[in-house]
Amino acid sequence: MTSPAVLAAVDWGTSNLRVWLLDEAGDVVGERKSGEGMSSAGGKGFAAILEEHLAALGAPEGLPAIVCGMAGARQGWVEAGYLDVPARIADFAQAATTAPGARRPVRILPGLAQRGAEHPDVMRGEETQLAGAELAEGAHFVCMPGTHSKWVAVEDGVVTGFRTAMTGELFHLLASHSILRHSLGETPDAGTPKAPAFQKALRDALANPERLTSALFAIRAGGLLDNVPSEDAAATLSGLLIGAEIAGAKSAAPAMHVVTLVASGGMAKRYAAALGTAGLLVNLVDADDAVRKGLFEAGRRLFLSGASA
Amino acid sequence: MTSPAVLAAVDWGTSNLRVWLLDEAGDVVGERKSGEGMSSAGGKGFAAILEEHLAALGAPEGLPAIVCGMAGARQGWVEAGYLDVPARIADFAQAATTAPGARRPVRILPGLAQRGAEHPDVMRGEETQLAGAELAEGAHFVCMPGTHSKWVAVEDGVVTGFRTAMTGELFHLLASHSILRHSLGETPDAGTPKAPAFQKALRDALANPERLTSALFAIRAGGLLDNVPSEDAAATLSGLLIGAEIAGAKSAAPAMHVVTLVASGGMAKRYAAALGTAGLLVNLVDADDAVRKGLFEAGRRLFLSGASA
Repeated sequence: MTSPAVLAAVDWGTSNLRVWLLDEAGDVVGERKSGEGMSSAGGKGFAAILEEHLAALGAPEGLPAIVCGMAGARQGWVEAGYLDVPARIADFAQAATTAPGARRPVRILPGLAQRGAEHPDVMRGEETQLAGAELAEGAHFVCMPGTHSKWVAVEDGVVTGFRTAMTGELFHLLASHSILRHSLGETPDAGTPKAPAFQKALRDALANPERLTSALFAIRAGGLLDNVPSEDAAATLSGLLIGAEIAGAKSAAPAMHVVTLVASGGMAKRYAAALGTAGLLVNLVDADDAVRKGLFEAGRRLFLSGASA
Repeated sequence: MTSPAVLAAVDWGTSNLRVWLLDEAGDVVGERKSGEGMSSAGGKGFAAILEEHLAALGAPEGLPAIVCGMAGARQGWVEAGYLDVPARIADFAQAATTAPGARRPVRILPGLAQRGAEHPDVMRGEETQLAGAELAEGAHFVCMPGTHSKWVAVEDGVVTGFRTAMTGELFHLLASHSILRHSLGETPDAGTPKAPAFQKALRDALANPERLTSALFAIRAGGLLDNVPSEDAAATLSGLLIGAEIAGAKSAAPAMHVVTLVASGGMAKRYAAALGTAGLLVNLVDADDAVRKGLFEAGRRLFLSGASA
C-alpha cells in the first residue's frame, strides 16, 4: 500500500515534462514523463496537459502542483520572473507565481537573474535542482552540466553568483551544422569518458583553453588528413568543449577546489571524470533526485505548511 | 589600349569564383566575379564554367589558366593535393595539378597540410594569398581572417606552421542557429570596429579567452534582462570571437609582435583594430591584390618562364 499523494511536482523544461506525485515524506507515489516541453505546449495549453498527466496518475481533485523550469518563461504558461542574486535559496518558494486557468492550485517557481554589465546571466529550473541539492552551510561551487551548463557559487545558503557555459548547445551546433559534421558522422556519440581521444582533448583544452576555436578546426583537418574515425572526432569535440568550460569556470572561481556536481547518468560520469582530470574533487548529487527534492521542499512551504506545522 | 592577356588567374572558392585576365606585367586587363563556387559548380562542370567566363572576357584560345582554392579539393574539379609544411613558398607552383577536360592548359595549385596529432591543419587558397603577400626574408606571422581564419608562421620564405580558427563560421552558426539568434535579430551586423560593444567584448576575450563559452551566453542573458539592442549583441559576438582568436594565436606564437594582415574591406578594418587593441603592430596587405599576385607569380613560373627567361 502506497501513502496518499499530497503534492504534484512538475519539472517543465524546454523539450520535456516530468510529473511526480509525492507523499507527505516526499517519496514518489507516481511518475510520468513526456515530450510536451514548453516549446510544444502552446497548442493544447499548459493547464490541459498537466491535467491529462495528473488524471492518468489518478491524482485527487484539488491536489496542489508546484512547477519549475521554462513553463515560467515569458513564452511559457505564465512568466514567473527572476529573483536577483545574491538570493537566499530558502526564499525561492515564496516568490512563486500562481498559474492561471488551472483546476487546482498551481505555483511556478521563479528563475534566477544576475544583472549588470560584468556578466549578465539567467537560469530557470536549475535553481530548484540547487535547492534540492541540500547544501550544508559554508561555501560551495556547484556544476550543473547540460545544454547550458550552470556553475553556481553558494555561500551559507545564498546564491552569490553564477555563469552559464553553452557547452551542450555548442556540441550540437558544431556536430550538426558546421564543417565538423563531415568528420563526426550522422549520429555523433561522444563515447565513454575513458576514451583516449576524449581525455587528450580534455587535457589540451584545460592546458590551452584560449585555443578552443582553432582546436575545433583541427578535428576537421584530422578527418581530412588522417581519416580520424568519427567516434574519435566526436569524443574530441566533447573533450575540447568540456575542458574549455571547466577552465573558464576555474578562472572565474580561483578558490574552487571541490565541486558539487548535480548530474545524472552518462553526463554525471563524463563530468565527474573531467573534473577529476582538472584536479577538482567531486561531490556527486543525482540531478533527478535534486529537482524532485527541490520541488517538494518548495511545495511543502507553499501548500503543506499548515499540515506539517 | 590595353596590353594583351598572357594568363587567366582564377580564385575558385567554396562559394565564389573570381577570374582575372592578366598581362605580362601581371596587371588586370579583364575581370569577372560569380557565385559559381566549388559547391555549386558540379552540375555545369568546372571546365564549362571557366570557358564561359573566359569567352565573356574575350580571352584568346589557348590562354593558360592558373587556379587556386577549393576547385582543388577532393569534391572539386580535380584533387590538387597538399604540400606538407614546412613548405617553401617558391615551390608551390611546381606542385600544381593539371585539370582534365579543359580546352586550354589549366593548372590547379596545391593546398598546404600540417600533419601529426599535435595540431593537424589544412588550407586551400590562402597559400596563394600568402605567396602574393611577397614577404621579405626573415620571420613573419601572417593573419588571413575569414570563415576559417588562418594564422601562418613564415621564416625565410618557408611556411613553418599554421593554425585555423573557425571565427567566421562560429559567428554565422551562433547568430543563425543558436539561442543567441533571439538576441541578434534577423540580419546580424557586427557594425564598426569602433563600436563600444565590440571593443568591450574584444578586451574581455583578450583578457579571459578561457571564458568564451560562458561569455557567449551572457549575450542572451543581456538581451533578456536588459533588452540589449541587437546591434550591440552582434558587435559583442564578433568581439568575443575575434578576441578569442587573437588570444589563441598569441598563445601559440609568443614571439609574435608584428602581424602581416592579409584582408580587404570591412574585414581588414575590423582585424586591424582588434590586433591593435591586442598590442600587435599591423602590416596590412590587400587580400584581393595578394591572391592575384600569387596566381600571377605561379602562372608565370608554370606557363611563361620561356617567354620571360
